Amino acid sequence: MMTVTVVGVGLIGGSLVLSMKQHGVATHVIGVDHDPTHLREAAARHLIDEGTTDLSAAVRRADLIILAVPMDALLSLLPEVLDMVDNQVVIDVGSTKKALLDVVRTHPKRSRFVAVHPMAGTEFSGPEAAVPELFRDKTLVLCDAEDSAADAVAQVEHVADALGMRRVYLGGAEHDMHVAYVSHISHITSFALALTVLEKERDEQRIFELASTGFSSTVRLAKSSSAMWVPIFRQNRENVLDVLDEHLRQLQHMRDVLAQEDYSAFTDLIHQANHIKRILK
Amino acid sequence: MMTVTVVGVGLIGGSLVLSMKQHGVATHVIGVDHDPTHLREAAARHLIDEGTTDLSAAVRRADLIILAVPMDALLSLLPEVLDMVDNQVVIDVGSTKKALLDVVRTHPKRSRFVAVHPMAGTEFSGPEAAVPELFRDKTLVLCDAEDSAADAVAQVEHVADALGMRRVYLGGAEHDMHVAYVSHISHITSFALALTVLEKERDEQRIFELASTGFSSTVRLAKSSSAMWVPIFRQNRENVLDVLDEHLRQLQHMRDVLAQEDYSAFTDLIHQANHIKRILK
Repeated sequence: MMTVTVVGVGLIGGSLVLSMKQHGVATHVIGVDHDPTHLREAAARHLIDEGTTDLSAAVRRADLIILAVPMDALLSLLPEVLDMVDNQVVIDVGSTKKALLDVVRTHPKRSRFVAVHPMAGTEFSGPEAAVPELFRDKTLVLCDAEDSAADAVAQVEHVADALGMRRVYLGGAEHDMHVAYVSHISHITSFALALTVLEKERDEQRIFELASTGFSSTVRLAKSSSAMWVPIFRQNRENVLDVLDEHLRQLQHMRDVLAQEDYSAFTDLIHQANHIKRILK
Repeated sequence: MMTVTVVGVGLIGGSLVLSMKQHGVATHVIGVDHDPTHLREAAARHLIDEGTTDLSAAVRRADLIILAVPMDALLSLLPEVLDMVDNQVVIDVGSTKKALLDVVRTHPKRSRFVAVHPMAGTEFSGPEAAVPELFRDKTLVLCDAEDSAADAVAQVEHVADALGMRRVYLGGAEHDMHVAYVSHISHITSFALALTVLEKERDEQRIFELASTGFSSTVRLAKSSSAMWVPIFRQNRENVLDVLDEHLRQLQHMRDVLAQEDYSAFTDLIHQANHIKRILK
């Protein structure tokens, strides 16, 4: 019997409580959102059992509080919520961790907070984008878990297991570096690819008619919302710039090899890139 | 009642004849491949009814001949096959068209050839990658169709309609320019993204554990084969370099805006990229 309060009933928060209800981990879900249409939509979709704008009451009544708001809002929301908790457990679902962990490092209730990052999502947003089983077979990263109380970590592990998630434990700074490689850079390249095609191909009907499945797959993330992603890039700016510079070097090298018509070197580059098959099925 | 000969029983050729058999367009399929294990595999998977290495007999017995080999092999194979045909129809399924059309421009049997490009595929290759319905709701581009005989074009249109494909008519040079934007560049960015991550993230277990659905989606094409793609980049080099240079400019601009911490401009770039939503659902 667990009452869960979710602050932010969008794609990630909504999908998370929906999955928790379906797997019997959450028995009652209270939604908090600054947007009343989000709350109505979330209730209509049975993501939440009740909606409120009274954050402190919703925190007081919960066993677990999930903070699923954009990263910039999270930096002020997390200490505010920790000020309110007694023995409840608080988790975030943010895509960067170091700045957030720094904000609460000396907070007297720091141990009630478990920093987690579910490695799943889609390019859509809002409660209407929430789907069950979004997290099955995906990874849940727990960051700096040694700074959280053992019972709080155990509760989060219980939720992860119930949802069929793999658990990975990382330091916050280490997490931010890795996600720059395997998540954030993909969004940058996808945004840039969309900008490229929109710039070069002025005939939108042609894009629609000719877009291959491959193109759709690489450009899909370019539909992602700036409200979610700008704060992520801001908070993980140094790591993202580092991997982006490496990506620019790799692209420039492929360009030069093609310009020089060195097809043997070009073939070698593709063979090297093919190694990703070993890792991703 | 149509006998179809397919030269090259890989992903595209195999999927095409499989779909044609399932939709009753092809009644008998002869497979020709230089690799006997491909022919055995294709027969075992019922992609073809018989396999042979005797190209001229297979051409003579067919109503429709599909050339589904890499682009470099196609440049010599197409005139060779046109030398053999009487009133049969010959199509290719290649990803570039201008060089190929130039090769047969003055061939006496030019009018029996219809240059087509089905805008669909996956990152896998070989007969084991062939799947039915790969082409449903996808686009079939017919290039320079005015240089083909009316009955040959009509036969290809009949196949496209039976497979549930959208038909688009383009000039060969125009086709090559458009596909550089909406297909070839995606493969370059995906190869470069894989190289970036393999270079920066030396811990392969971490890539496996943390790879988000978004990362997998943008890097999927990096599994594509060099045998197929190097000839495409070679034959469409100028268009690919042109769009690649634009992509490098867009990426560099995103990088500079992020380095300068100009988040208002960064937000604007994402909003512009989001316009791709209008075109691709």
